[in-house]
Amino acid sequence: RINSARLWDSLNEMALIGPGVAGGCNRQTLTDADNAGRHLFKSWCEAAGMVMGVDSMGNMFATRAGTDPEALPVYMGSHLDTQPTGGRYDGVLGVLGALEVVRTMNDLGIKTRHPIVVTNWTNEEGARFAPAMLASGVFAGIHSQDYAYGRTDPEGKTFGAELARIGWVGDETVGARKMHAMFELHIEQGPILEAEGKTIGVVTHGQGLWWLEITLTGKDAHTGSTPMTMRVNAGLGMARITERVHHIAMSHQPGAVGAVGQVMVYPNSRNVIPGKVVFTVDIRSPDQAKLDAMRAEVERAAHAVALELGLGCSIEPVGHFDPVTFDPALVRTVRAAAERLGHAHMDLISGAGHDACWINRVAPTVMVMCPCVGGLSHNEAEEITPDWAAAGTDVLLHAVLDTAGI
Amino acid sequence: RINSARLWDSLNEMALIGPGVAGGCNRQTLTDADNAGRHLFKSWCEAAGMVMGVDSMGNMFATRAGTDPEALPVYMGSHLDTQPTGGRYDGVLGVLGALEVVRTMNDLGIKTRHPIVVTNWTNEEGARFAPAMLASGVFAGIHSQDYAYGRTDPEGKTFGAELARIGWVGDETVGARKMHAMFELHIEQGPILEAEGKTIGVVTHGQGLWWLEITLTGKDAHTGSTPMTMRVNAGLGMARITERVHHIAMSHQPGAVGAVGQVMVYPNSRNVIPGKVVFTVDIRSPDQAKLDAMRAEVERAAHAVALELGLGCSIEPVGHFDPVTFDPALVRTVRAAAERLGHAHMDLISGAGHDACWINRVAPTVMVMCPCVGGLSHNEAEEITPDWAAAGTDVLLHAVLDTAGI
Ligand SMILES: NC(=O)NCCC(=O)O
Ligand SMILES: NC(=O)NCCC(=O)O
Repeated sequence: RINSARLWDSLNEMALIGPGVAGGCNRQTLTDADNAGRHLFKSWCEAAGMVMGVDSMGNMFATRAGTDPEALPVYMGSHLDTQPTGGRYDGVLGVLGALEVVRTMNDLGIKTRHPIVVTNWTNEEGARFAPAMLASGVFAGIHSQDYAYGRTDPEGKTFGAELARIGWVGDETVGARKMHAMFELHIEQGPILEAEGKTIGVVTHGQGLWWLEITLTGKDAHTGSTPMTMRVNAGLGMARITERVHHIAMSHQPGAVGAVGQVMVYPNSRNVIPGKVVFTVDIRSPDQAKLDAMRAEVERAAHAVALELGLGCSIEPVGHFDPVTFDPALVRTVRAAAERLGHAHMDLISGAGHDACWINRVAPTVMVMCPCVGGLSHNEAEEITPDWAAAGTDVLLHAVLDTAGI
Repeated sequence: RINSARLWDSLNEMALIGPGVAGGCNRQTLTDADNAGRHLFKSWCEAAGMVMGVDSMGNMFATRAGTDPEALPVYMGSHLDTQPTGGRYDGVLGVLGALEVVRTMNDLGIKTRHPIVVTNWTNEEGARFAPAMLASGVFAGIHSQDYAYGRTDPEGKTFGAELARIGWVGDETVGARKMHAMFELHIEQGPILEAEGKTIGVVTHGQGLWWLEITLTGKDAHTGSTPMTMRVNAGLGMARITERVHHIAMSHQPGAVGAVGQVMVYPNSRNVIPGKVVFTVDIRSPDQAKLDAMRAEVERAAHAVALELGLGCSIEPVGHFDPVTFDPALVRTVRAAAERLGHAHMDLISGAGHDACWINRVAPTVMVMCPCVGGLSHNEAEEITPDWAAAGTDVLLHAVLDTAGI
């Protein structure tokens, strides 16, 4: 069993870096706070006897040697970056839980045949630079590094420049590492485990996603002196499409979600009819056919609304992954570990995207989930209990030991 | 007749201060650009022999002496501040047109019985600090100066601090000046004059307005892992209310407008269901009963949508004026001047709010309008012709001479 108090202390200590305004965190990727969090994590890994490697996307890999020089490493980890108003555990539990697994192996003097690597993936959230899971995506060959380096934040700063600025452009080639297996522990970020009274989610699948960035162009005009019939109102178009996205998601229940999270209105002045709006539609389903259908319906709806209102409309996909099926053998390993430890468990489909979803393309991969209070995440009030964190980390320990060989 | 080339040159020179990104202007109130524009205007007034006074709201009053020491001054002016992506003429024509009237009087050696005052009112646009027409509102006793000083821009800076920063807190008490009459020349900002083939609008009335700032509070949550039924989506509420505002305005045609110009979504991240949205509804009508009915309908609709979606909803009025009836005698003076000069003219209701709407509460007031291309304003592409500018300024000259007495 892992040391629950030590894990909890580390989670609390990391949460002090890039604190939020309401008890959570704002440690967005490639900020000074992200840099500070990386240094703290590195110092902890080195204190636990691991050797840190960094690739040119800033992905961090702390290695604990194995006994078999030929054996490929077993990876475990997640991400330390957060949403602008994010929680303390989303991603962080998966990184510091993995560190705690190694610390526990050290305490117990356990040696494994396969090396063990604890990983922090860069820019999982995608809040500052779209898309999400950017660096694991480059690792898995989904995106080129050039594409990733050129992504811009809302201030126009590029990923490449910001990674260099905080000093985390490593010398390893991204994706050069080969993996025996990859495990990701994560909070559920949804309400199912808590509602079903389960402590462990054995993640068998992940939802697919499209992020569609829609740009509507109308005509800036005076809200007072422009007759209703002469308006080309991009804000009204955004509103109408937002409502349609909701209805499209509702019409595909169960197993589909859709929302608009980000909206930029131009010039955003009380007495100017918006001449331009840029907003992102987020649609997801574990079912490929539903995901495809929803995408087509959203695009049709957007163009139809634009036509109704006389707006220009362009749609750019800024994030995408297909539904994921995790490695069946590793799924069985996780399920068996939960069973052996006596934790109430159930199979789960991940509602969120995770680095594991990309790594699954290049290595046998699986996820372990534990509950979060009220299913709340991407909210500073995100909360878990020390017991849930410990249960998830214990399952991670056992599943990794089963896979890495003692 | 005024000197059309000189007026046009001055308009062009002022447009170089706080240039926009697409040929217009970004000379928002109390910015460094506003300060530079004020200094240029002051230097022009002094070169024309006028004496500048400034009150504690930063309103500027350049006086040309009259022949009768007892006579109250005749005022004319408008505003030099612009929208963030504003035009070159909205407000500016009214100030520099008034200056051109004085320059023409100087050229012709005309003396008037009443003194003449050329005015620049502070923060007419209300883009940076709501409400619009803030400083003329304090002058007319609608708002207290404390209220005005406490208004904040999106960065949290106050009007009072910013006015002091740019150095335009004058020593005059706001509203202490008594006026014989007040004239405001302005571009129409709407399509009617051009469509009707008229060069001059004789403004008999002004629309009334409500700006309602609506704050919806839901719950930040993950767009992927939060089931549709568990969402409390403030963004969807904003969308639904935006659509209702449009329908409410459409249901009161003719003689009513409504739109949402400004929207702030929190935390505004692609994969976070918005937990809070703050947006402003702008509704207007020249008919008091319609205006009142629309306000009630918008408030009812907002609360109904909030109830449907489980959102918190608060509504704060951040701008208001009732419909205005301008001074009938001055309206006749303007109409007679247009007639005498041979300009095609028509009576007009102002769709926009203007400083004249507040000053009308404390002095006999009227407005003169000239067309703008396509009715477009609050847009960098706002355009007028030199002939339209000259026609409006000639009417202003004649109407002011009639009122000030030669
Ligand atoms: N786990 C998580 O919140 N990932 C961000 C990508 C997504 O929006 O699903
Ligand atoms: N003229 C003008 O654009 N004034 C701003 C106030 C309004 O929105 O009507």
